Amino acid sequence: MSELARFGVSIPDDLLEKFDVLIRGKGYNNRSEAIRDLIRDRLVEEIWTEADQDVVGTATVVYNHEQSDLAQKLTEIQHQKHDLIISAVHVHLDYHNCLEVLIMRGHPDEVKRAGELLISTRGVKHGKITMTTTGKDLE
Amino acid sequence: MSELARFGVSIPDDLLEKFDVLIRGKGYNNRSEAIRDLIRDRLVEEIWTEADQDVVGTATVVYNHEQSDLAQKLTEIQHQKHDLIISAVHVHLDYHNCLEVLIMRGHPDEVKRAGELLISTRGVKHGKITMTTTGKDLE
Amino acid sequence: MSELARFGVSIPDDLLEKFDVLIRGKGYNNRSEAIRDLIRDRLVEEIWTEADQDVVGTATVVYNHEQSDLAQKLTEIQHQKHDLIISAVHVHLDYHNCLEVLIMRGHPDEVKRAGELLISTRGVKHGKITMTTTGKDLE
Amino acid sequence: MSELARFGVSIPDDLLEKFDVLIRGKGYNNRSEAIRDLIRDRLVEEIWTEADQDVVGTATVVYNHEQSDLAQKLTEIQHQKHDLIISAVHVHLDYHNCLEVLIMRGHPDEVKRAGELLISTRGVKHGKITMTTTGKDLE
Repeated sequence: MSELARFGVSIPDDLLEKFDVLIRGKGYNNRSEAIRDLIRDRLVEEIWTEADQDVVGTATVVYNHEQSDLAQKLTEIQHQKHDLIISAVHVHLDYHNCLEVLIMRGHPDEVKRAGELLISTRGVKHGKITMTTTGKDLE
Repeated sequence: MSELARFGVSIPDDLLEKFDVLIRGKGYNNRSEAIRDLIRDRLVEEIWTEADQDVVGTATVVYNHEQSDLAQKLTEIQHQKHDLIISAVHVHLDYHNCLEVLIMRGHPDEVKRAGELLISTRGVKHGKITMTTTGKDLE
Repeated sequence: MSELARFGVSIPDDLLEKFDVLIRGKGYNNRSEAIRDLIRDRLVEEIWTEADQDVVGTATVVYNHEQSDLAQKLTEIQHQKHDLIISAVHVHLDYHNCLEVLIMRGHPDEVKRAGELLISTRGVKHGKITMTTTGKDLE
Repeated sequence: MSELARFGVSIPDDLLEKFDVLIRGKGYNNRSEAIRDLIRDRLVEEIWTEADQDVVGTATVVYNHEQSDLAQKLTEIQHQKHDLIISAVHVHLDYHNCLEVLIMRGHPDEVKRAGELLISTRGVKHGKITMTTTGKDLE
């Protein structure tokens, strides 16, 4: 773990007051933590546009399990991409609907591509790719 | 399940050609499926801005489990919000870093609020809220 | 203009180093300015979700001026919404294509609604609403 | 101008009904136009990730003109980037605040870079880059 640095931010006090209200509303106890989160969020965006670093991402899909072949197709794609997919969690939303979250790790393009394949499968009602980090590059 | 309807789209053929290239690249075999996905994506965005309908969402957090108290704090928040959180999956990314995906269901504001509480916890390196659907409202 | 405040941010030095690289790449000379921009960006997002404060926004539309009636229709909508639209700039992109940027001020919902009306007009090829601020609320 | 093509979309009627409500609310009279807009919006996103095609974009900045040197600095940057900047419009928001919209054309990376330079200038309160199209590639 790296050393802790410290730097000062000068800011109009009106703006600081509004920031304090905003972050309290989101559950932050502490300005430094809120600032670090803003910083890390931008860095994760950057990392996802570069090809030379592993990222972690999730693909979230909602589908009707009664749709013929759909569950098998999603499983097949996952096995094709098994080297990218770390783990999957499945929730039975109701009698018809399922949610599945696939956790993936790899090059940004490959992770996006695997997520797109799952989301574009016929019968998937909604899908989203979420971009996060291995944590390594973000002390 | 509802009946299938059919409608026609008139479109300049150049534009259609570009669309076909785009969706093939994303893994779609079929224009209707791609169009339905564009439609459902916009509808899910709308549902999340309304307060009168349940949604499903995930909170994805990456953190260092060695950070004192962090894992306990995250567990505490999850228990406070247990009525919203359906399930959680945990991945050990490396010796230090963990990823947790919490799957939530409830009113959009409550789901967002629970996600923000988790993400704003001191020591969480990166967090994201993903907005999806119960599937009920999207045949 | 309000007084200048100053607060300290503690941050792992690896993270700070990455942030410095990022902001230098974007043209910042100074961490405080980059932090203030991150803060103001989040505040502007918040202001746009509230109904009780004026905002400034732009609608950017690209269209083919040869499309029958289109220019007139866009002008009509602008006159209907004249109390919201401060100013418009027009660029002749090529022989066929025009770009128009409308600058609007008003309640967030009204500004969005006016932008959507312009963008949804038949023949508009591409449109975007950009959310910014009156500047009053952001010292 | 290219020929008009036509294709059919099959869709559950519940979903179609929800789509009709959504697009009527946004001012569309016609499903084809709404579908074309969804398609063009995705295509513009794609074009901005490629380096081999010109795009059009705007940079919107809000600033206090009393801030020493700021207006000059922004003008200087614009002159450095004069080959990218087609036109600029300026609005006096109030006694202190100005809004400027710069319309740019060029390679996606250059347009982004010029926008970032303007937005990162010390004293700019808020800035946004809006991505649109030359219209050429989107019949």
